[in-house]
Amino acid sequence: MTSSEHDHAGSDQAGSVTLLGLGLMGHALAGTLLAAGHPTTVWNRSTDKGTDLISRGARRADSAGEAITAGSLVIVCITDNNAVRELVRPLAAELRGRTLINLTSGSSSEARDLSDWAAQHEIAYLDGAILAAPTGIGTYEAAILYSGDKDAFDQHNPTLRKLATPTFLGNDPGLAALHDVAVLGMMWSILNAFLHAAALLQSAGVSATALTPVLQGGIATTAGWLAGYAEQIDTGVFPGDDSTIATHLAAMTHLVDESSAHRVSTDLPLQIKAVADRAIAEGLGQSGYAAMISQFRSPE
Amino acid sequence: MTSSEHDHAGSDQAGSVTLLGLGLMGHALAGTLLAAGHPTTVWNRSTDKGTDLISRGARRADSAGEAITAGSLVIVCITDNNAVRELVRPLAAELRGRTLINLTSGSSSEARDLSDWAAQHEIAYLDGAILAAPTGIGTYEAAILYSGDKDAFDQHNPTLRKLATPTFLGNDPGLAALHDVAVLGMMWSILNAFLHAAALLQSAGVSATALTPVLQGGIATTAGWLAGYAEQIDTGVFPGDDSTIATHLAAMTHLVDESSAHRVSTDLPLQIKAVADRAIAEGLGQSGYAAMISQFRSPE
Repeated sequence: MTSSEHDHAGSDQAGSVTLLGLGLMGHALAGTLLAAGHPTTVWNRSTDKGTDLISRGARRADSAGEAITAGSLVIVCITDNNAVRELVRPLAAELRGRTLINLTSGSSSEARDLSDWAAQHEIAYLDGAILAAPTGIGTYEAAILYSGDKDAFDQHNPTLRKLATPTFLGNDPGLAALHDVAVLGMMWSILNAFLHAAALLQSAGVSATALTPVLQGGIATTAGWLAGYAEQIDTGVFPGDDSTIATHLAAMTHLVDESSAHRVSTDLPLQIKAVADRAIAEGLGQSGYAAMISQFRSPE
Repeated sequence: MTSSEHDHAGSDQAGSVTLLGLGLMGHALAGTLLAAGHPTTVWNRSTDKGTDLISRGARRADSAGEAITAGSLVIVCITDNNAVRELVRPLAAELRGRTLINLTSGSSSEARDLSDWAAQHEIAYLDGAILAAPTGIGTYEAAILYSGDKDAFDQHNPTLRKLATPTFLGNDPGLAALHDVAVLGMMWSILNAFLHAAALLQSAGVSATALTPVLQGGIATTAGWLAGYAEQIDTGVFPGDDSTIATHLAAMTHLVDESSAHRVSTDLPLQIKAVADRAIAEGLGQSGYAAMISQFRSPE
């Protein structure tokens, strides 16, 4: 049993960690682990990165294989999963018996493929999605979603908590990537609604700064409804008690008209209205809003 | 000076209020005022509504004109602003010297027209937008946005606070309606992103209930960015420090691909991506997200 295997099996409190990839995010991850007292070995394809990490005590490995054998926990965070595959496939022997955590952005199917490969080589695999900017790593505001090997998650939880608030989503290694795009879709939807609203109110001389608290109030209120709508979705019962889709449609027409009258793009309001129009055409006018989930499922 | 004019000029603590319209919302408003000890006179076009209010002490007027003269403050909440116009135009003499608060849903131009008419007849006019369901009226979660006559807002603030948290937006009477549709646009955008995400994750066996807290975390994080983005919009400087539009676009492609792979509608992801595509075609690839406000302004 090597010392790194001993670390792997035992306490993780300040176990040795290997970081493959020193882009903005990899650099932030390595710096946070170093600051937390973990023996940290780093490797990057080009060696011009991470000099400051070395001066703070990180060890630079000459090869990815050497880096891997220095750590009980191996974190990879590079450009994309094609690059991950190319990097790790020749290193199955070095990775065997270790935990590989892939924090590279990618798709759920790529994560599942990598997990299958890892399982064949007795490598514990976790896929992770970082919900933070590099500057947020190590702060309580950052979150990282994980899916895959639950035992590996539990074992390394003390380390992972130093990077960001960790959430384990399930054994399906694709879940982190799927939740990631779902959260991003929510983020872009909010940002686009914000930009549309800012453009609309600007036409009436209202600054985006003045508008923001009003919108934030609406966001908080709407976020509070989601658990109730989720229960409706999970049970398939969509009462129109609070407001029906038909009632919403009338107000959507106001948004289209105000946008048009104030010479703001009607793309966003028209798309919102189109979903309700289709739902009503399918007979959902007297149902509650969440009944429109049918409009987001497969058209086939 | 009649007693109602005396109320108008003096303290508003439990002044007489007239409620025109006893639909679900008007009924909730009248009930809340009654419970707060305001002498409340109600009128509705059809007299079958509000019987319970009468039994709780409200006075039913035989005509809208009689109702108006019974209250120093007149609140109207009916179907739409065409109905408001029809109702109040013949009653200018009765309304003169009083405050008319219009909580009927409508457009900013309708609100401005009604305000102009009111000014001609020495009627103090406030337009209001209710950000709550009828069941929320009288609770601290409810908000009502007001715009128009600031003196009237200040004078009746103690009464308005009993209905919902009141916010005064400015002298332009159209501001309440404009903020209303902006908040609604945000609400629908969040709900649609939620429904899309629920459909996507359902394909991986994840319940909407399990997904919700992850999305709520993303919503809270995104909401926290808006003040910073608002400042960028107000100053016209959009640094790409945190993430560039080009970086966002790459992740948007993941959302499109995951939706397609999991047989979920790609309408929402494709619209999100289309905005970024156009922005990048205009040379904004290295700017921050909020630079895309240009895509929401008038195309002319």
